[in-house]
Amino acid sequence: MLTLTVELERRSYPIHIGEEILKNADLFAPAFGQKKAAIVTNTTVAPLYLEMLKSTLESIGIQPISVILEDGEKFKDWQTLNRIYDALLENRCERNTTIVALGGGVIGDLSGFAAATYLRGVPFVQVPTTLLSQVDSSVGGKTGINHPLGKNMIGAFYQPRAVFADTRTLDTLSDRELSSGIAEVIKYGLIRDLPFFEWLEENMERLMARDQEALAQAIRRSCQNKAEVVARDERETGERALLNLGHTFGHAIENAMGYGNWLHGEAVAAGTVIAASLSQRLGLIEESDVERIRNIMKKAGLPTAAPDLEADTYLDLMALDKKVEEGRIRFILLDSIGKASIRSGISSDEIVGAIRSVHD
Amino acid sequence: MLTLTVELERRSYPIHIGEEILKNADLFAPAFGQKKAAIVTNTTVAPLYLEMLKSTLESIGIQPISVILEDGEKFKDWQTLNRIYDALLENRCERNTTIVALGGGVIGDLSGFAAATYLRGVPFVQVPTTLLSQVDSSVGGKTGINHPLGKNMIGAFYQPRAVFADTRTLDTLSDRELSSGIAEVIKYGLIRDLPFFEWLEENMERLMARDQEALAQAIRRSCQNKAEVVARDERETGERALLNLGHTFGHAIENAMGYGNWLHGEAVAAGTVIAASLSQRLGLIEESDVERIRNIMKKAGLPTAAPDLEADTYLDLMALDKKVEEGRIRFILLDSIGKASIRSGISSDEIVGAIRSVHD
Repeated sequence: MLTLTVELERRSYPIHIGEEILKNADLFAPAFGQKKAAIVTNTTVAPLYLEMLKSTLESIGIQPISVILEDGEKFKDWQTLNRIYDALLENRCERNTTIVALGGGVIGDLSGFAAATYLRGVPFVQVPTTLLSQVDSSVGGKTGINHPLGKNMIGAFYQPRAVFADTRTLDTLSDRELSSGIAEVIKYGLIRDLPFFEWLEENMERLMARDQEALAQAIRRSCQNKAEVVARDERETGERALLNLGHTFGHAIENAMGYGNWLHGEAVAAGTVIAASLSQRLGLIEESDVERIRNIMKKAGLPTAAPDLEADTYLDLMALDKKVEEGRIRFILLDSIGKASIRSGISSDEIVGAIRSVHD
Repeated sequence: MLTLTVELERRSYPIHIGEEILKNADLFAPAFGQKKAAIVTNTTVAPLYLEMLKSTLESIGIQPISVILEDGEKFKDWQTLNRIYDALLENRCERNTTIVALGGGVIGDLSGFAAATYLRGVPFVQVPTTLLSQVDSSVGGKTGINHPLGKNMIGAFYQPRAVFADTRTLDTLSDRELSSGIAEVIKYGLIRDLPFFEWLEENMERLMARDQEALAQAIRRSCQNKAEVVARDERETGERALLNLGHTFGHAIENAMGYGNWLHGEAVAAGTVIAASLSQRLGLIEESDVERIRNIMKKAGLPTAAPDLEADTYLDLMALDKKVEEGRIRFILLDSIGKASIRSGISSDEIVGAIRSVHD
């Protein structure tokens, strides 16, 4: 068991990573100043872990209510968010009720946004149960919902009081979900941590075989990288944007294919290959680097080719991305494996060329 | 023309108060770092002031888009909020688009919440056009929407970059709306400013006759009082709760009668009389103080009697209020005219007695 701290002054919080954390009442107790809690989860996770979490909380004197939502990215919308508000109001939850997110990124984003906005803000605790949410959405305080015209368009920055990442919950994850999480793990290596990237190249088989120790290491290193970036740039005015490597293309893919048909990490993997190809076309990295990236994605069971959409479809969808500034799309590109930077003013020709180069 | 500053460290902002401010381009320019803006207003205010504000912004190089909503408290809901999001997305508004609220409290709350949550936060400027919004909602950063189960249940704390209160816009306000605003003005006197309360007793006729100089003074003194309180307690963990004098009862009245049938200030006026009566029953103030409060409300054209609801209806609705803590309702009571304090643990008998004492 290991604890990291995300350093955000008064809003600093711990991330606990390890086996059987869900059963560790002593670890949970300090995060619950008050004795009321509402656990938000979904129909997939509830049968697996809800009772375990409830009995842990009950053992420290908390009688939680539960809100069980449908599972899937397509439910990350206003209607589902409203079900959380309804349950909180029907149960007369007050400003001292802690909202606990038990599930993956969708549950974390939805319930984090509910916590940010219910009564203008109530305490929030994350219990991420997927690799993706353990290495990504549980760190950094981004919460929100999708809008029919774009992903994550509505949201807030809102930090949890604590994060509890139990590696045992990954045992019940599908292979596709596991791979999707690894896409974000690889990203940390690519943007700022060459030794970690090399470690991933060597240990990918262990990760795919769900070796608990390898997973814990990958989660720890990912969270450390993200926590360092977020601590320096909480509201994404600069460096934090590097975490979006592959995401501008990836969001366009998710959006075009319909949310949930491509998993987030799958879209990010294909988007990362496009970003790598664009970096190579602009002379920043070598073709051999692009190949190395393709290879690690393949080892992780991830797609390396983008869906065959019109290039204009990509450009239109990317123009909606939150990273657009004064009409210019900012791209996260690789200067080398282990180092990324933000660029804008890239010609459509180069962008379209990169997209075409990674079609099937 | 006069400028106050709300002191909130990095998020401090100016409030400009005076005649013809809407036409003062030099005043607007510093609040718009970027050249994109979306004006959110309603069908009542748009014909009166939208063109004026647009031409002021155009004269400093900003081409604003406009979002014109229906007018009324009952539109302070998710559906209307979503119309703002739709317009922002359809017009490809980015992180550097400033949202400008042109209207009363509903427009301010809705567009402030849109600004807080669109792309996880974009710049926000307020142009309040009612007395209520000039003296209350434009200071302090409370934004939000109503939920079918309660008023202002969903929202965020989000500070504007600047507030522009043009007293000339009060010329077009209905008498009822003017009185509603004065209810909040009286509140500042009651909770922390006896000299202001005495000034109001002497100058109420001038205010009701819309004497521009008297209105500007009342707005300035109200905003000063609110700004001082908010600067010390932005997120309402203590003193800021005093601003809710009359509001726990008032919200119950608004909720029970259907949002918008009683104006906010009307409900607060009746709620304030209940709070004063409760304070008197608890031996904090004299019956003559209650009478003095009734008198100033009457002079301001405000109701001093609560609607004849079952006492249990009040208690149920108040239990939903955001000021509830550990199941106990906290009341803002008067220790004297000019001084308020927070009390809890008050018996239902006393509460019911106070409610019954102010029925027609």
